[in-house]
Amino acid sequence: MNALLALDYAGVAVFAATGALAASRKQLDIVGFVFLAAITGIGGGTLRDLVLDQPVFWVLNPAYVLVCAAVALAVYATAHLMESRYQVLLWLDCIGLSAFAAMGAAKGLAATGSVTIAIITGMLTATFGGVLRDLLAGEPSVLLRPEIYVSAAMAGAAAYTLGGALNLPQGVALAVAFAIAFLIRGGALRFGWTLPRYKPRAGRDVGPRK
Amino acid sequence: MNALLALDYAGVAVFAATGALAASRKQLDIVGFVFLAAITGIGGGTLRDLVLDQPVFWVLNPAYVLVCAAVALAVYATAHLMESRYQVLLWLDCIGLSAFAAMGAAKGLAATGSVTIAIITGMLTATFGGVLRDLLAGEPSVLLRPEIYVSAAMAGAAAYTLGGALNLPQGVALAVAFAIAFLIRGGALRFGWTLPRYKPRAGRDVGPRK
Amino acid sequence: MNALLALDYAGVAVFAATGALAASRKQLDIVGFVFLAAITGIGGGTLRDLVLDQPVFWVLNPAYVLVCAAVALAVYATAHLMESRYQVLLWLDCIGLSAFAAMGAAKGLAATGSVTIAIITGMLTATFGGVLRDLLAGEPSVLLRPEIYVSAAMAGAAAYTLGGALNLPQGVALAVAFAIAFLIRGGALRFGWTLPRYKPRAGRDVGPRK
Repeated sequence: MNALLALDYAGVAVFAATGALAASRKQLDIVGFVFLAAITGIGGGTLRDLVLDQPVFWVLNPAYVLVCAAVALAVYATAHLMESRYQVLLWLDCIGLSAFAAMGAAKGLAATGSVTIAIITGMLTATFGGVLRDLLAGEPSVLLRPEIYVSAAMAGAAAYTLGGALNLPQGVALAVAFAIAFLIRGGALRFGWTLPRYKPRAGRDVGPRK
Repeated sequence: MNALLALDYAGVAVFAATGALAASRKQLDIVGFVFLAAITGIGGGTLRDLVLDQPVFWVLNPAYVLVCAAVALAVYATAHLMESRYQVLLWLDCIGLSAFAAMGAAKGLAATGSVTIAIITGMLTATFGGVLRDLLAGEPSVLLRPEIYVSAAMAGAAAYTLGGALNLPQGVALAVAFAIAFLIRGGALRFGWTLPRYKPRAGRDVGPRK
Repeated sequence: MNALLALDYAGVAVFAATGALAASRKQLDIVGFVFLAAITGIGGGTLRDLVLDQPVFWVLNPAYVLVCAAVALAVYATAHLMESRYQVLLWLDCIGLSAFAAMGAAKGLAATGSVTIAIITGMLTATFGGVLRDLLAGEPSVLLRPEIYVSAAMAGAAAYTLGGALNLPQGVALAVAFAIAFLIRGGALRFGWTLPRYKPRAGRDVGPRK
């Protein structure tokens, strides 16, 4: 349970930091920092718990929200020191994505026993906080960026379920899942890895963009 | 129950196809196709089940998600063959809207016995997947298009509750509800049907659009 | 309980009116007015009830939705009489924000006993309907406006929990919470009050806005 909890707090904290960085890019005030940090930090896990019909994790334990608030204050105090806040945001988002893909898969598998559901809850937990952050801050969605993103979450979540099938200890399965998601998303950020993107055949009508 | 299940799978599959088509317009990769297809296919029913405090349908039965993934792969392979992908998207969305208006009303009426709630859950189920698709893909919301859209879902859902009041067999009520929603939305697509849109009086201040 | 119910209906009605005003700005049809009014009116409370694992309030009592529909019709009939619909929208939003900050805190405190959770559910209830309205109508989010917004909701919700700690009668605590949120947000609207906004140090890279 310790590895789970550590991953959970780490994921919440780094996603909260990305929300605060988005707030700094929009020049919000300090309460705006806390609000956007909290929504980004706990949004993915909230959706996961709702669809799994589990009590929402931060309602059981409000410390998660206080972590978000503390992170928001720290970012408010230090964001001006960063060379490129958007780069920092992307790398923290990468850590959060990896932590939540593992966590979300673990919680989904424990709640339902279904590998399919575990992979989906891993992907949802990992991506939904960032989706909310981008929607609320009016930033282009990280989902639509060219480099691999959702795929990294899927691979991490799938790795966790494979670890379960192989009877690995949970801490090991979580670590492997985190590492796989991180290597894939991190590689995508560092080296621009992409999967082949859909390309309509030249000369075809791609439809009105009304 | 068979008519219900058939409508449900049909709605999920065609909405998934619209999500995949939106992914193709954004030139996402294959995992992006699957992700957007799944969110569009199961988003409306997920919200319906959450507000009705029912178990989320795809958590009970992950086959729905696999249908979305299969549809996404099929669209990835064939989208370039389509003359106008946006037209296809709108017509599939029309079928999904009609199926989910009927389904959503049936589930809302069964869960609460309230006609008002049934009409609302019909509308929510029918429209929310498309709303999520447009938000996540950064497309202009189908809700804001000039032709009749939400009204078709409302009419279909209302028709289902009327069928219940008249003690029609459920299969008949579902078919009638589907047909009414389809004829209204289809007519709107084909002939540009609109309800009168709100027009501020000429010369009035319409407010800053800051 | 009467003060609670009155605040609840008032909050739903005025948020519904803001949704209908947004619909008028987008020149939707009458069903579009009702739909956007209902989503704005009940969206915040829906999220609150879902995260608290309470039955959704409008599913228990569909009258809330009928209130939204009636308000939407009234706005449809009268919006052209208003000098500046966006100003009216902002002031109604201010009333709704204040009512829901108090209500949301009360419901969160009653459900969990946690002051932290109560403040969060107050903020969520107060802001989420407006966030949904702006997202669905394609308007810039009220969250990103320069004047104090979320902070007013937080102050009102915190005041309610303080009232609880001081053993004030609930009606008094609700009234104080409403008044504090209203004075802060109203002052922000009237006098342009802001908290200090985050300012990156001059000459620093603020990151690509790709």
